[in-house]
Amino acid sequence: MVQRVSRLGELKQRKRLDAFLLTSQPSVKCFSGYFFNFETGPSPFQLLPAALVTVSNSESTLLIADTESHQLSTLRSGITVRSYISYTYDKPLDFERQFLIQLHDIIKEGKLQNARLGIEIDAIPAVITQSLHSRFPKIEFVDVTSEILLLRAVKDKDEIDLIRSSVALCDIGQMSALKNAKVGISELELFSKVRYEMESAAGSRIPILLDFISGKRTSASGGLPTNKTIESGDLVLSDLVPCLNGYWGDSCNTFVVGKATSSQMKAFDSVKEALQIGIDAVRPGVKAMQVDKLMRAHIGDFFHHGGHGIGTVYHEEPRIVPYNDIELVPNMVIALEPGIYKEDFGIRLEHSVVVTETGCEVLTKFNHCFDQYSI
Amino acid sequence: MVQRVSRLGELKQRKRLDAFLLTSQPSVKCFSGYFFNFETGPSPFQLLPAALVTVSNSESTLLIADTESHQLSTLRSGITVRSYISYTYDKPLDFERQFLIQLHDIIKEGKLQNARLGIEIDAIPAVITQSLHSRFPKIEFVDVTSEILLLRAVKDKDEIDLIRSSVALCDIGQMSALKNAKVGISELELFSKVRYEMESAAGSRIPILLDFISGKRTSASGGLPTNKTIESGDLVLSDLVPCLNGYWGDSCNTFVVGKATSSQMKAFDSVKEALQIGIDAVRPGVKAMQVDKLMRAHIGDFFHHGGHGIGTVYHEEPRIVPYNDIELVPNMVIALEPGIYKEDFGIRLEHSVVVTETGCEVLTKFNHCFDQYSI
Repeated sequence: MVQRVSRLGELKQRKRLDAFLLTSQPSVKCFSGYFFNFETGPSPFQLLPAALVTVSNSESTLLIADTESHQLSTLRSGITVRSYISYTYDKPLDFERQFLIQLHDIIKEGKLQNARLGIEIDAIPAVITQSLHSRFPKIEFVDVTSEILLLRAVKDKDEIDLIRSSVALCDIGQMSALKNAKVGISELELFSKVRYEMESAAGSRIPILLDFISGKRTSASGGLPTNKTIESGDLVLSDLVPCLNGYWGDSCNTFVVGKATSSQMKAFDSVKEALQIGIDAVRPGVKAMQVDKLMRAHIGDFFHHGGHGIGTVYHEEPRIVPYNDIELVPNMVIALEPGIYKEDFGIRLEHSVVVTETGCEVLTKFNHCFDQYSI
Repeated sequence: MVQRVSRLGELKQRKRLDAFLLTSQPSVKCFSGYFFNFETGPSPFQLLPAALVTVSNSESTLLIADTESHQLSTLRSGITVRSYISYTYDKPLDFERQFLIQLHDIIKEGKLQNARLGIEIDAIPAVITQSLHSRFPKIEFVDVTSEILLLRAVKDKDEIDLIRSSVALCDIGQMSALKNAKVGISELELFSKVRYEMESAAGSRIPILLDFISGKRTSASGGLPTNKTIESGDLVLSDLVPCLNGYWGDSCNTFVVGKATSSQMKAFDSVKEALQIGIDAVRPGVKAMQVDKLMRAHIGDFFHHGGHGIGTVYHEEPRIVPYNDIELVPNMVIALEPGIYKEDFGIRLEHSVVVTETGCEVLTKFNHCFDQYSI
């Protein structure tokens, strides 16, 4: 059922590891199910919100800050949970030491004192490797960052369902943008309505990565909303990337408020065709770079990726880019996002798709439409 | 002028260091002025958004991801900026190596190959210390996390001004909550209006840490907004902690929608008195724990800190807690937040203040008021 954990087992064998110590938020989520919100930056009460020690399919321990224990509803079954004391007000903060004490215990109880330990070297604080090295000098660290990235690229059914829920929020957000955009509203006010409808559907606050720009600024392809008001004839580029329960969805629409120029209409149609060409090309065995190449061939080059995997991170393998010869396989989930950027406007359209046995299924149900009054 | 950098120089002497390599977001902001948004978690295109190598008051190098170079408007003068290649689509991502190449060059050019280097060991990825150790085996790492925390507690004038701007957003948010709360609105919808008014005043999207709860849930002291609608007689607890240009503001109000019970009114008055007692106690030479004790003496114990420093992190020294014998000094900025939590409701009120030569100045201008119609 949970094939990603089995693949972790294969990686363990291939690299002659004894266990993994995973510390990046995307990997902890992917392999344990545990998600913590990261919107306000690293907590001043934690060394890490969570770390996952995985020995085998049936032997995993999640070490979390005790203040996070209310967030365990999405945890995979069969994972042992231990917590460390993080926030205190009646005595000095001691979370670093508390984390390390618990981690040392996990190492000892798992008989990992001489282990070859797979780690994510970019995402593990130096205090952890130094402390383990000093306490258990025979532990050997092996960086498996790039292998884990590839391993996460193929999704299990439960992950695809989570991405579906997240992508459904994209659809709600795109409809809201189309419905609420009007002359005189500011980008920030329009986005606040979009965000509210997405969060209301989610039932909670959610992280949202975004480009949300209007008018001439669309030619720059990206940016955050400002107090600029929307004028008649402005394009609105709305790239919405919400994270629901740890999995990201992704979609982009561009539409006009008022009347578009014929050059803009032509560009919109071309980008929509390019996106469809990309979607039609997605199937097992096709190289990522081929999908990218076909889209660029239709609309000319643009200065960003043609697409990317989505999952517990908003941009992961398979990257749909000119150099990437990775072959698509079933259950990869990909966002495709071709764009045309002129001097005074830009248009980008994006769908999220899951690779099937014979092609792909488009997860985003929203139908890109350039004229807001035609919906 | 920038005394925090001079204090860094004193710390360097005291610990016999040759330089600092600072990697935590709050320290990079504090000592370089550079701020990056962290709302969507670590970037898949960066090892770190930024790292700061400081040798002396006049010799600092900020190493940033090249995609962040548009965010340099708040940089302190006299800092050399170098960037590393982070995002690429025409060739494979190589940000880890690119970061390390640049960092090695900075070490060589600064003649720091044999340096004692002050680091923040909880906030530096292991790949950086390992790579430096392997390339420059004579570099010695000295963890200065706790010293840096104390050093950041006293603010310079430019920092206090930034906190003032952030606190002004708190005032706007609290007025918005009072104004827009009504029977039938959901917590999420009310918060979306609050957030929009704060972001509109800021002119941009801003990170906001918050507790935003209503009704019985206020007895739990904290939590995020949900689809729960506000009923007549509900209390609304609104703790708003925005981050503007890297500095956090903090305020909390609790008010009733409709009519409060006499027990609630009494509790509100007591908490307001406790807050005033805390404010009156703040002056140079007073111990943090004394301020905490006075507030608890008035309203009884509550299960969180009585207050905390704010700055480039939303909770830092001086912590206003029972154990903390740190003495207050001018230009510390503190949020005080006493609370009463009963079985069916909770009330917390909070002001942000700056310690002056003779007492303190209250930065939050918002006047806590329990009845929304009396404003």
